[in-house]
Amino acid sequence: MLGIAPTAQIVDLTHDVPPHDVRAGALTLVRSSQYLPEGAIVLAVVDPGVGTDRRLVAAETERAVLLGPDNGLLAPAVAMLGGASRVVTLTNAELQLPSPSATFAGRDVLAPAAGSLAQGAAVVDLGEPVDSAGLVPGLVPLPNTEGDGLAGEVWWVDRFGNCQLNIDPLELAAAGAEPGSSLEIRTGQTVRAARWVHTYADARPSELVVVVDSYGLVSLALDRESAADALVLRAGSAVTVVTPG
Amino acid sequence: MLGIAPTAQIVDLTHDVPPHDVRAGALTLVRSSQYLPEGAIVLAVVDPGVGTDRRLVAAETERAVLLGPDNGLLAPAVAMLGGASRVVTLTNAELQLPSPSATFAGRDVLAPAAGSLAQGAAVVDLGEPVDSAGLVPGLVPLPNTEGDGLAGEVWWVDRFGNCQLNIDPLELAAAGAEPGSSLEIRTGQTVRAARWVHTYADARPSELVVVVDSYGLVSLALDRESAADALVLRAGSAVTVVTPG
Amino acid sequence: MLGIAPTAQIVDLTHDVPPHDVRAGALTLVRSSQYLPEGAIVLAVVDPGVGTDRRLVAAETERAVLLGPDNGLLAPAVAMLGGASRVVTLTNAELQLPSPSATFAGRDVLAPAAGSLAQGAAVVDLGEPVDSAGLVPGLVPLPNTEGDGLAGEVWWVDRFGNCQLNIDPLELAAAGAEPGSSLEIRTGQTVRAARWVHTYADARPSELVVVVDSYGLVSLALDRESAADALVLRAGSAVTVVTPG
Repeated sequence: MLGIAPTAQIVDLTHDVPPHDVRAGALTLVRSSQYLPEGAIVLAVVDPGVGTDRRLVAAETERAVLLGPDNGLLAPAVAMLGGASRVVTLTNAELQLPSPSATFAGRDVLAPAAGSLAQGAAVVDLGEPVDSAGLVPGLVPLPNTEGDGLAGEVWWVDRFGNCQLNIDPLELAAAGAEPGSSLEIRTGQTVRAARWVHTYADARPSELVVVVDSYGLVSLALDRESAADALVLRAGSAVTVVTPG
Repeated sequence: MLGIAPTAQIVDLTHDVPPHDVRAGALTLVRSSQYLPEGAIVLAVVDPGVGTDRRLVAAETERAVLLGPDNGLLAPAVAMLGGASRVVTLTNAELQLPSPSATFAGRDVLAPAAGSLAQGAAVVDLGEPVDSAGLVPGLVPLPNTEGDGLAGEVWWVDRFGNCQLNIDPLELAAAGAEPGSSLEIRTGQTVRAARWVHTYADARPSELVVVVDSYGLVSLALDRESAADALVLRAGSAVTVVTPG
Repeated sequence: MLGIAPTAQIVDLTHDVPPHDVRAGALTLVRSSQYLPEGAIVLAVVDPGVGTDRRLVAAETERAVLLGPDNGLLAPAVAMLGGASRVVTLTNAELQLPSPSATFAGRDVLAPAAGSLAQGAAVVDLGEPVDSAGLVPGLVPLPNTEGDGLAGEVWWVDRFGNCQLNIDPLELAAAGAEPGSSLEIRTGQTVRAARWVHTYADARPSELVVVVDSYGLVSLALDRESAADALVLRAGSAVTVVTPG
């Protein structure tokens, strides 16, 4: 990219998305999208279908352009950014690198496209316009009310072992809970008591707590231990939060 | 940060400090501090007390400004840089991001403060001045003379498994050792012979050696093996170095 | 480096080369070399001989200058870049940092040399000219024809567990195979059937496939699984590819 756009600044968001995990990649982008600087160019690759006929696209939003495979990776962040005013497929071979194979689109197609944008090219220079509402949607499961609880799932396990659920604290509140409430956490393996607290440091030793995390979602945590390890949870695991209501 | 200061250059020192390990974070900063460029802005977060009433501060030194939680993370590096001429608590909400929760001060308070400094704000713009000598001190244990040896501890295990001790080679010299000397290394588990050598490559296969490492401290190493694994050591483990004197 | 060259842009290629693995470091540089921007300064350190009399060098090529220990790390990339027009040993102590020990040449010698180049110094300012064809060569094993197969080895295992071999697809073609062919893969442990396919996504569940990877070499892969784990392979493992010819 610097070979094409020598003064671009490159920020490495992460190289730690698990292999082939398009949903984790999509969540990473969603988490980052509201903090992007104006005019940012975002290159994302989680691409188990590399070399097949899945499209590579650039999606232009008001704040940023996102480039990547059209496999559900980009759509949730594009939606978070207010939707795309323009989407093109990256078919202009003149803005790509000659490639020894079909297996590294990030290097041979997406990176030169990002470099060209940084150097002043327009999104329409990159390829053919397509339906700007036609991106492959990401999988964003929603929780269900189930008896006296909210049945959701783990969206994300962070490096501390905290487990973010796909549950909004307003939904817990609507079900009768409030900060300080005692809750019950049911997984496939176990049932445990938990307490809704303000922050991680409020947890007593070994006490399972519910915290509104830094993305505004309900998260399970233990005091300086991994809740994911203790409850045998990972991304996608089913979790029901039973409220006192 | 680039949204606030578009031309700032961001250098990622590390994301590999173990979770909740304030001391490891403090040592990382100490190791880096003498190599900071003039005018550097250092953002550090190891913050098990996030959301509690521990303060977030900016400490201005001659060479750099350091931002982070006031929990012992910053104080050793600030001291290494000659002390702070000014310390403020980050209470100016106008230079912070609106936050969905109390759990991510790095993103919502510290990063915008760092961006504001990079864009020309003064440290005093960030919040209330406080006692510039009042930072929470970091834990920096010192070795003790004990019989015919120096009783210290492991400060750091690097990615090669070399174990840096909190022992200065001048202390070994004062106890009668010199490069080439035979030493004895006592841990809670074992007693092993070691030799003081010039560099890692001087170790014979399986020979435990003592090296003055890149920070000028005494380090235990094995030839292309992990001394930490072989001696079952980690940060904080007690180690006594017995000198021939 | 920024202390010497404040406007330099630093790109972190990788910190994930296995400890002491000079060959993996050399392959990383070879893989990157054709994508370097004009005028790039490349600092590489995999240096098990740090502190011994192995030389530290700067090698000037048409596109880039490479700095590192002269232990086989640099030579393959220098060759890929068309050879060095000039090589110097880094003996000019005025462009180095004062060092507390002999164990961190990357920080005390190579980084300040790279910073000085970025700030406008010439390669000859860094030290004594030496034979520009005299770099210690890297180990680049070549495959052998063996009965009805090509006997090679694993050069690289990527983070997906795909195993790159030191075999060019033209060699497979010369031995009678073509895309779509059935092949046989023999390791020290096992014999397995494989199919030459276009891209990773063409593999059926559990089917071992051969793909021309993003560097134009023959690679072994499984569908969203680690071929390295399944076949118990790592860098250096012997692999024979038997063709239908």
